[in-house]
Amino acid sequence: MPVVARRLAAEALGTAFLLMAVVGSGIMAERLANGNTAIALLANTIATGAALMVLIAIFAPLSGAHFNPAVTLVMAVRRQMPPALALAYVLVQVAAAVAGVWLAHAMFAAPVIEASRHLRDGPAQWLSEFIATFGLLATILGAIALKPAVTSLQVGALVGLYITAAYWFTASTSFANPAVTLARALTDSFSGIAPASVPGFLIAQLAGALAASALFGWLLTPGVQET
Amino acid sequence: MPVVARRLAAEALGTAFLLMAVVGSGIMAERLANGNTAIALLANTIATGAALMVLIAIFAPLSGAHFNPAVTLVMAVRRQMPPALALAYVLVQVAAAVAGVWLAHAMFAAPVIEASRHLRDGPAQWLSEFIATFGLLATILGAIALKPAVTSLQVGALVGLYITAAYWFTASTSFANPAVTLARALTDSFSGIAPASVPGFLIAQLAGALAASALFGWLLTPGVQET
Amino acid sequence: MPVVARRLAAEALGTAFLLMAVVGSGIMAERLANGNTAIALLANTIATGAALMVLIAIFAPLSGAHFNPAVTLVMAVRRQMPPALALAYVLVQVAAAVAGVWLAHAMFAAPVIEASRHLRDGPAQWLSEFIATFGLLATILGAIALKPAVTSLQVGALVGLYITAAYWFTASTSFANPAVTLARALTDSFSGIAPASVPGFLIAQLAGALAASALFGWLLTPGVQET
Amino acid sequence: MPVVARRLAAEALGTAFLLMAVVGSGIMAERLANGNTAIALLANTIATGAALMVLIAIFAPLSGAHFNPAVTLVMAVRRQMPPALALAYVLVQVAAAVAGVWLAHAMFAAPVIEASRHLRDGPAQWLSEFIATFGLLATILGAIALKPAVTSLQVGALVGLYITAAYWFTASTSFANPAVTLARALTDSFSGIAPASVPGFLIAQLAGALAASALFGWLLTPGVQET
Repeated sequence: MPVVARRLAAEALGTAFLLMAVVGSGIMAERLANGNTAIALLANTIATGAALMVLIAIFAPLSGAHFNPAVTLVMAVRRQMPPALALAYVLVQVAAAVAGVWLAHAMFAAPVIEASRHLRDGPAQWLSEFIATFGLLATILGAIALKPAVTSLQVGALVGLYITAAYWFTASTSFANPAVTLARALTDSFSGIAPASVPGFLIAQLAGALAASALFGWLLTPGVQET
Repeated sequence: MPVVARRLAAEALGTAFLLMAVVGSGIMAERLANGNTAIALLANTIATGAALMVLIAIFAPLSGAHFNPAVTLVMAVRRQMPPALALAYVLVQVAAAVAGVWLAHAMFAAPVIEASRHLRDGPAQWLSEFIATFGLLATILGAIALKPAVTSLQVGALVGLYITAAYWFTASTSFANPAVTLARALTDSFSGIAPASVPGFLIAQLAGALAASALFGWLLTPGVQET
Repeated sequence: MPVVARRLAAEALGTAFLLMAVVGSGIMAERLANGNTAIALLANTIATGAALMVLIAIFAPLSGAHFNPAVTLVMAVRRQMPPALALAYVLVQVAAAVAGVWLAHAMFAAPVIEASRHLRDGPAQWLSEFIATFGLLATILGAIALKPAVTSLQVGALVGLYITAAYWFTASTSFANPAVTLARALTDSFSGIAPASVPGFLIAQLAGALAASALFGWLLTPGVQET
Repeated sequence: MPVVARRLAAEALGTAFLLMAVVGSGIMAERLANGNTAIALLANTIATGAALMVLIAIFAPLSGAHFNPAVTLVMAVRRQMPPALALAYVLVQVAAAVAGVWLAHAMFAAPVIEASRHLRDGPAQWLSEFIATFGLLATILGAIALKPAVTSLQVGALVGLYITAAYWFTASTSFANPAVTLARALTDSFSGIAPASVPGFLIAQLAGALAASALFGWLLTPGVQET
């Protein structure tokens, strides 16, 4: 099944580059910012948003460019991909995300294997992740509904812009992605999350994704476009 | 009338997310910027502009993506929507804007209900809001006149870019939206406005919107495009 | 001649808003940046670039959206507009640019009428303005040659991006526009230029514009596209 | 052969402007940033990314807008341009890159001819350049594969966005271009690289480019698009 191999390779490459962008730019930003966290987060935001735009544009025709188990779950629930393929996507996404973190560490001459000590807990953080992932899926489902008038390149631009905004308007800086969350537990740098805080994030993310899927299933019902 | 319900739901979702973006990113920026207001406003600007681009792209096909009573008023005056629907839009926009502020507070573990103490008064501020809203409606009416060559996604990009600029070139940071103004009276954070300053802003905004509608009614008369 | 009146009105509105964006965002940035000029220029850059993208998109179908006597001169030299109309454009551009500066001052409660004390002289500055204007015309002529594949909205985006870059890569911060230069002599704020420095800028700008027109006249000759 | 002359002129103009953007904005940023390197790199990033978007949009129809021997090498290896023309491209790119650095120095009234003292050595830097150039070629090859749905203007936007991200997520700030690397050895400013560090960068860049060419040759094989 060469086509499936290529799809999984595309998911792997895209997810690994996404994590290099998130974690690598966080390391660079923290090292250069002299303690001004706003500037560090601004650089981290711009690098992440720009990387997402490119990666989705390039890989969407190959794999759909999910890079995110929450997106893959919603696609499977909406019966747009078979469960076995969805499972393979998720496994590849998590493995590639971890590889991306390790490559970022190697590029910055940091210890490759470590764990974050940055606790991110409590209801406000969980609400943030619920809203962040709800908004991400709303963006994706809304943008897909506009095809073919909106191209994959433009869907990628919208996702990149959404994350650019959500890094700042949620208190959690919008992880909004279970594979990203798991992998960021393995870096003790700017973008890390302590392993103990991961389960709360994952639950909030999946709940937000499924809520968006349900609400936009109703909102985007054919016929409404005619208004 | 399910279609109207969906239109109002789209206005509500979009306006609530817009206020989360404005107020949430303002809180995040102020907390991280160590007192450097320029960096805080820069982050607030980028988050707001990016959010507007996404929200208009996604919701324009559903509700027109006004999120703004000044826009709805101009559309009603130009007989592009019936008055009763316009009134419903405005009520939903104001309610959703308030909900967005409260959700932002909850995400940042701040008191949900509060009032701003940030006075924004005087002729220079009112001139700023007049010009800010004039320019916003000029952008919207000019962009709509370019359809179908310009898509809803591109209209959203232009509105986001306009607000990105206007945050900086007006002394009021360009509220340019009565629902946003009312809701921002309910946050005592970076983006707040004292309730006593609200009426002056609303009057200036509506005057600017109607002036733009009149001027662009003349400027965009069919026939000029042939030049 | 209503059509000409609308063209001149579009040039006036666009140029006035451009100067409000340049000068207004400069005042805001300087007030907030606590002396960090890099942050101030970054905000000034983002506001100016975003404003240009919007203004060109909206007004290009009406007047061509020159907002710049150097552009109008090149269009007249290339026989794409009659000399009398070009002269009217230039007069309107200069008057509207001055009005834009005064409106920016009024918005920020600054003295409306003043003169800059910021000297910008010497060969390095003049070389900067030569290259800045050469690059601006190269961008415009190159982008126009791509029509209709490239829309007016995209031409505007390219011009906005070019100025975003040129604010930083030229030592003069890339005025690249005689009307803008004259008007910025009338503000003693961040973006001002002393009246004594204006003639050197104007000569360098016109030389750069004409050099680009000559070189791109050769480079864009039909037939080269086939490569 | 006038057409070849125009192609080489386009490569020369584009590469010279690219280096002016990289080096010039680095000088401006360092002078204004009061020692905050994060702000300096952010300005350098935004100027470079914006310049790339414009230069590729304008010059792609003329020369393909390589501006980069690694790109030209891959195109020659993939038999999309004859070896003799590829060699001419590379010579022009290097000469124009050096001219761009010297023009940047002249604009900022710095000594025109100098050499960098900024050592950038070691495996982490080389891994960074390998990944940076791998990602750049992945972006270009992936984007080209999407034509004609994706225009040259959009390819340029993706390349600009990729470099915007890669300036931050690689430890080397992503030179990713042998001509740029050689020329930046000739500036002792923010963006310089000591001549002794150049060979390691060049080897890593060419290895990354060829690796991307091989992997994407497999990944983008016709037939995979049907998924």
